[in-house]
Amino acid sequence: LVLQWPVTLLLSCQRPSLISSRYVSKTATKSVSEFEYDAPSMKTAVPGPNDIQLCLSPGLQNVGAVHFFCNYEESRGNYLVDVDGNRMLDVYTQISSIPIGYNHPALMKVMTNPNNVSTFVNRPALGILPPENFPDKLIESLLSIAPSGMRRVQTMACGSCSNENAFKTMFIWYRNKERGYANPSEQEVDTCMINQSPGCPDLSILSFMGAFHGRTLGCLATTHSKAIHKLDIPSFDWPIAPFPKLQYPLEEFVRENAQEEARCLEEVEDLIVKWRQKGKPVAGIVIEPIQAEGGDNHASPDFFSKLRNIARKHGCAFHVDEVQTGGGTTGKFWGHEHWGLDDPADVVSFSKKLLTGGYYHRDELKPDKPYRIFNTWMGDPSKNLFLSEVLNVIRRENLLEVVTRSGKALLQGLYTLQTQYPHILSRARGQGTFCAIDACNDATRDSIMIKARNKGLFMGSCGEKTIRFRPALVFKEYHVHQLLNILNDVLAEHK
Amino acid sequence: LVLQWPVTLLLSCQRPSLISSRYVSKTATKSVSEFEYDAPSMKTAVPGPNDIQLCLSPGLQNVGAVHFFCNYEESRGNYLVDVDGNRMLDVYTQISSIPIGYNHPALMKVMTNPNNVSTFVNRPALGILPPENFPDKLIESLLSIAPSGMRRVQTMACGSCSNENAFKTMFIWYRNKERGYANPSEQEVDTCMINQSPGCPDLSILSFMGAFHGRTLGCLATTHSKAIHKLDIPSFDWPIAPFPKLQYPLEEFVRENAQEEARCLEEVEDLIVKWRQKGKPVAGIVIEPIQAEGGDNHASPDFFSKLRNIARKHGCAFHVDEVQTGGGTTGKFWGHEHWGLDDPADVVSFSKKLLTGGYYHRDELKPDKPYRIFNTWMGDPSKNLFLSEVLNVIRRENLLEVVTRSGKALLQGLYTLQTQYPHILSRARGQGTFCAIDACNDATRDSIMIKARNKGLFMGSCGEKTIRFRPALVFKEYHVHQLLNILNDVLAEHK
Repeated sequence: LVLQWPVTLLLSCQRPSLISSRYVSKTATKSVSEFEYDAPSMKTAVPGPNDIQLCLSPGLQNVGAVHFFCNYEESRGNYLVDVDGNRMLDVYTQISSIPIGYNHPALMKVMTNPNNVSTFVNRPALGILPPENFPDKLIESLLSIAPSGMRRVQTMACGSCSNENAFKTMFIWYRNKERGYANPSEQEVDTCMINQSPGCPDLSILSFMGAFHGRTLGCLATTHSKAIHKLDIPSFDWPIAPFPKLQYPLEEFVRENAQEEARCLEEVEDLIVKWRQKGKPVAGIVIEPIQAEGGDNHASPDFFSKLRNIARKHGCAFHVDEVQTGGGTTGKFWGHEHWGLDDPADVVSFSKKLLTGGYYHRDELKPDKPYRIFNTWMGDPSKNLFLSEVLNVIRRENLLEVVTRSGKALLQGLYTLQTQYPHILSRARGQGTFCAIDACNDATRDSIMIKARNKGLFMGSCGEKTIRFRPALVFKEYHVHQLLNILNDVLAEHK
Repeated sequence: LVLQWPVTLLLSCQRPSLISSRYVSKTATKSVSEFEYDAPSMKTAVPGPNDIQLCLSPGLQNVGAVHFFCNYEESRGNYLVDVDGNRMLDVYTQISSIPIGYNHPALMKVMTNPNNVSTFVNRPALGILPPENFPDKLIESLLSIAPSGMRRVQTMACGSCSNENAFKTMFIWYRNKERGYANPSEQEVDTCMINQSPGCPDLSILSFMGAFHGRTLGCLATTHSKAIHKLDIPSFDWPIAPFPKLQYPLEEFVRENAQEEARCLEEVEDLIVKWRQKGKPVAGIVIEPIQAEGGDNHASPDFFSKLRNIARKHGCAFHVDEVQTGGGTTGKFWGHEHWGLDDPADVVSFSKKLLTGGYYHRDELKPDKPYRIFNTWMGDPSKNLFLSEVLNVIRRENLLEVVTRSGKALLQGLYTLQTQYPHILSRARGQGTFCAIDACNDATRDSIMIKARNKGLFMGSCGEKTIRFRPALVFKEYHVHQLLNILNDVLAEHK
């Protein structure tokens, strides 16, 4: 098997041409052991002519959302190459879902190992006919990174399915508590078949304004970040609490932020009581460690700790949605590890950088019977193969330390930029490389992003006027400086 | 790259040992060009000792549902090998999701083609950054088999996500019609953020008793096959129509069945009117061409044709869920092709044998704006690579004809068995190899299945007392005779 990349690499490794001005950051030296490009290299504006041509392809859905078509074969590490040969520093990484960069050699080796072929070719119905090595693969991958207090994991195909099934797990647990772990009544069995209570009970999940937990109908009832996600889709009457609107930098507004968090927590308790009185008790509370899609909104460890206590006090399960924060991007493997609680969650869901969806849960949330949480595939063992290698690379290359170091440099650089351009930028914030900064309005934000892209820096947006940074875990200080230099160039030219 | 299978094959290709009695069927000769085993070969009862050991593995969820652990490396074609070296003729095929058997050489070649490596290693966010070849791959795979009248397809990760997003597509289409394709009002935009109407409207999907459309919260509101799926999970107040309870063989009960179907269709129209009056109009009707999980319940082309007309008359979208019936198993690529309508559906969803989830839809159901139907991955291009090869094999080996021929032999054999054992078996039915037969009760059904498994035949169940046959498309008449012989042995021994 001859892989294409070493040849291509020799041909394409040239020094940057378009990027010249260096205002903010010094260029760091790059280790020679890495096989990626040195820098962005732009040949056309993005989208370029090949790209525009491809957008006319018949049968393609949702072309309106396509940013550009990619040449994944030519992409390496932190650099994404488009179909016009433009090479961009990618700090969006497929909506935060590429853990260790493009075409990482460790992942390419998974493909060339003949022992792995069968896992790709024969996708099993994992719930009933798991492969012989599945328990071992779980132990060496997902169970090796299980959050504190958890030793059970259920894989799923994607983030939405993970949250849907996590919700179901909480509903089942809650009703079993309510009926004293007795068998369901005949009436429950009969009514559930026709969508009616008591078999299909009026339970609810409490979520937060600005949250994003997915877009299937159950998840969508807990998502409140953008109208485009929710318009025209029927939903559930479930309680929605305010998420703290903090002032940044957090350490300068400790008192104001604590007041804001107290206000939100009070509202949470009020809603739990109110919905219980309505006959729609809250079975679970779901929250992101950092609201991502909703605008990179942070809260303090104290807030989460108190929220966890409220959940325990009222008998609600506490579900931490780590779909975007999980996998190392905050500098710890799980975002909620920053809270320092002994007992942080009942359920932790994941997807994206973990390459497979799924969720961990405490022993007591294990469904009482088989087939209550079930579907045909229940995940995909071929994704676990890649995940094992990703975890090896994270450990071998100390990538959590890399993220912490790069994250500090990035946040420091963003502080400098917002001081330099206070009329354009504000509210720089972040944990690890999970960083963000606000523009003065959405038009300015969008314009900065397009200009940066044409200079070889591809970023994502979130919230109303926020730029979010979601680089891979192999994003080094060297890349931080490239990012800051391009961003500075754009801001300097900004009218 | 050295693949393992040719070596193993030489070692394991021995003649059957346990299967000796031949009551029903003659043994057909097998073409030498195939690389699979000749017959089942059993070494232990199932589950065997290695299997029982593995069930004790820490961290494994839902062990209660595990039938046995598999050795997928050693499995070939129609034969599934377990961890104790038992080799079974598999007519359940991972809940009907293995299209052309285990370790098909055409699929193994996909893995050894260096051009494909990048597609496996770099999973894109398809909605925003598709790979260069994605439109072409869609054209050569999913669009080449698009149902009549459809030229748009949206891939998704699994069956439930496919149906969830198909429902959303129908809701969006329905509301756009209702508001005359105007922009949503400010009130709609505001209320949708907090799950309230008019932004989150009280629309419904009409489904049928006995249906199975998945187990996420939206899908689950249209699933009514087993209480274990639905108990304790909140649901929507959506209308549920009776599915015809037909008598088999269909051709002997034409008049009785027509009456039963007319009764159900009348109920459908009543429910549509009633739910409109309730303020929860039916945006779409969802139905399986053959209810699978619910017990392999058939209906006539006339029923579906009239149902389609009712949907059109009342302005509801018509969604055919082909997750289990699609992919060739009925003898046509799509189950609904048997209806012979020019204009059969607005939406057709799929998964399982198609290896990727997704749905086709008519042009008029295209969402009016980007990002309305969206998630991070939106499918997985590596699955499309396998699907292209599956389609090549289906065409090259005329597998739809194979299915039709094997299906006829299978159904004929089941008729013979139910004549021979009328106190045990009844209601043999099927289309292609998508066949089923009822036992006199669930205990008998389960006992037959376990005994057959110990003789090397692995079958699935559905409904209350039904055995369902879901072989791969490479299931030849030779295998039909093996199946019938084992089943006959079991029945002959049945007390």
